[in-house]
Amino acid sequence: MPEISIRGRRMPESPIRKLAPYAEIAKKKGLKVYHLNIGQPDIKSPEIAIEAIKNIDLDIIEYGPSAGYESYRKKLAQFYTKQDVKVAFEDIMITTGGSEALLFALGSIMDPGDEVIIPEPFYANYHAFSEESSATVIPVISNIESGFTLPTIEEFEKAITPKTKAILICNPNNPTGYLYSESEINQLGELVKKHDLFLIADEVYREFIYDERDKHFSVMNLKGIEQNVIMIDSVSKRYSMCGARIGCMVTKNREVIAAAMKFAQARLCPPTIEQIACEAAIDTPQSYFDEVISEYKERRDTLISELNKIEGIIITTPKAAFYCIAQLPVDNTDDFAQWLLESYNSNGETVMVAPAGGFYSTPGVGLNQVRIAYVLKKEDLTRAVQILKDAIPIYNSEKNHLVLKSTAN
Amino acid sequence: MPEISIRGRRMPESPIRKLAPYAEIAKKKGLKVYHLNIGQPDIKSPEIAIEAIKNIDLDIIEYGPSAGYESYRKKLAQFYTKQDVKVAFEDIMITTGGSEALLFALGSIMDPGDEVIIPEPFYANYHAFSEESSATVIPVISNIESGFTLPTIEEFEKAITPKTKAILICNPNNPTGYLYSESEINQLGELVKKHDLFLIADEVYREFIYDERDKHFSVMNLKGIEQNVIMIDSVSKRYSMCGARIGCMVTKNREVIAAAMKFAQARLCPPTIEQIACEAAIDTPQSYFDEVISEYKERRDTLISELNKIEGIIITTPKAAFYCIAQLPVDNTDDFAQWLLESYNSNGETVMVAPAGGFYSTPGVGLNQVRIAYVLKKEDLTRAVQILKDAIPIYNSEKNHLVLKSTAN
Repeated sequence: MPEISIRGRRMPESPIRKLAPYAEIAKKKGLKVYHLNIGQPDIKSPEIAIEAIKNIDLDIIEYGPSAGYESYRKKLAQFYTKQDVKVAFEDIMITTGGSEALLFALGSIMDPGDEVIIPEPFYANYHAFSEESSATVIPVISNIESGFTLPTIEEFEKAITPKTKAILICNPNNPTGYLYSESEINQLGELVKKHDLFLIADEVYREFIYDERDKHFSVMNLKGIEQNVIMIDSVSKRYSMCGARIGCMVTKNREVIAAAMKFAQARLCPPTIEQIACEAAIDTPQSYFDEVISEYKERRDTLISELNKIEGIIITTPKAAFYCIAQLPVDNTDDFAQWLLESYNSNGETVMVAPAGGFYSTPGVGLNQVRIAYVLKKEDLTRAVQILKDAIPIYNSEKNHLVLKSTAN
Repeated sequence: MPEISIRGRRMPESPIRKLAPYAEIAKKKGLKVYHLNIGQPDIKSPEIAIEAIKNIDLDIIEYGPSAGYESYRKKLAQFYTKQDVKVAFEDIMITTGGSEALLFALGSIMDPGDEVIIPEPFYANYHAFSEESSATVIPVISNIESGFTLPTIEEFEKAITPKTKAILICNPNNPTGYLYSESEINQLGELVKKHDLFLIADEVYREFIYDERDKHFSVMNLKGIEQNVIMIDSVSKRYSMCGARIGCMVTKNREVIAAAMKFAQARLCPPTIEQIACEAAIDTPQSYFDEVISEYKERRDTLISELNKIEGIIITTPKAAFYCIAQLPVDNTDDFAQWLLESYNSNGETVMVAPAGGFYSTPGVGLNQVRIAYVLKKEDLTRAVQILKDAIPIYNSEKNHLVLKSTAN
């Protein structure tokens, strides 16, 4: 039997999805599982997008242009311009999800062995996309104790080698919920200019900011390094249309667009029907977002206030997106998360969390942390955290008991 | 300004799409352009699929499972089993087009520098997917003179090195329209077994066979090498749903499925709405296919009989798919194809063809060939070939004139 590739073996499993089989078994046993592990919002997609799908007037579901429909790219350019991100439609390439935008960006600027620096913890799939491109992730640690602020420029500079091609950030951040300030983005801009690197920013959570004093500062607004900057975006969270798989890559660097265009032509085009829905979604009224943001803000406040009742927890209030990293008073959250699904329930209910180890690439870091997504209703969040709170001492005592027994043997 | 990657520079341009800007200019000048270059059928998608889209009952366009909806995978397994390709749903991974299935397959079995042997001419994007995966294409030439039969096993064996991981074929073939016989597929099976390689077969044109005596023989039916075989499929041509971007990777090799699953999890899921349409499309009545095949057969016969009126043309009648390779009495079809769009018209009409050089990876081969897709109505095909026939002597005389002039200088 021929062997699979080293790349295929090295590709990381998703820390968000890898415990899914245990959750399935728990559900088959009749347990209710609260999903704190995945960022699938329960918010309805805009009616205007659903209606556009129901009203499609097509006989043939044809190929579209490789860069996406021009009409959609033009409306998207207007959308960004209104948000003070001034781009032309030629700067925008429509992709099959933000995922593909990242793959195109990495493929267009990195060769096998090249290095990309990413502040960790980071969205676990960045690791996967880098492996797919045979590129190497160099992590720079941001600390839970300092609330996941940008690591110092000295830390970044220590990580730069002749193989470094790019710095990749997620802003607002998944998994930490941190929102980088304008000053932090400017610092990165200076660094990128000094070393002539690319700066890739995944800004898919740009709408989800909960304090009116906070404002998102896009890398597209950095002056003097327009040719170094690549923005990644997606409709998944903005319109609660995760299944549409429509995103985009935005850059003023024509060589990057030209290279990415060859990747785009190879896969022919993004999905046609979903693009029609996304083009319609651009006219979603502001009231939709006002309601959604206010709902998420309340969820965040509920989650944080409930989590703070857990003794020994370390957590900072996320400013944006809909995730937070919590450090729990347990030794190993991989084991704990599996135990919650396999061996614990409270009145027939349990909780699924994403162990945070998979969001770090430095071995051994984050092993007592979890990522929690607050995409559930407030009462469900309250109940889920209550289950977590009650479970921790039981898990620890069972574990101590096992340790004592094995020491006695 | 930071530089793009070597990979980004090496990625080939699509020979099918690269002349599109010249076609745009021709159209802006008011010319009618007959598109013989692209495989976008004008056949309607099945009503049952369009209706499924119009009747979607969703509030949220949610993420689906990374391997695709289980209900769809199960119906697809039944569909193949009816076609005598016995697979279980666990052998099937739904992908975003056949394109992604190929990327997942290559990524799961090949590392940078590994080699994949492909009989040429081949679908140009195989080259692109190999570049994306940093794998190397090793071509084995199949000749227009022998009607594009499988190159001899000796030719394949000469191409095998310690870095060879796979042989990739397209059956029925794009761009040649050749249908590999059961005996040819069996020969490949023996070879693959002897050298313990993977055999990847792109079978997306399996339905489009025009002679009742001919039968498609799937690599999935090769005995004794079940672990070596990977089949690529897509709904694009079967249901004239190219824009749906739904395909699949099929293999009984669990390690390949497990590796591909990590690629699949990284990009989260295939598009949701389009999957619903494709699941519905499985119930398309046989009458739809009967009509479509009979229409394509007539188009093929029209095309070939018209092309044979061109003096000096070399062509063999395609048995399947909807393409053929024609060798024209011109020196360079890249130049000729561009000239047709830029400098020629017959009563305000011209033709776009795909120069075949991009379907070969051996430099200098196929430069006087074009790929022609017969996806237009018969009367349009007749008119398009008439234009081609009239244009060739004019092009050649203009060219000779230029050569004479430049020799005189």
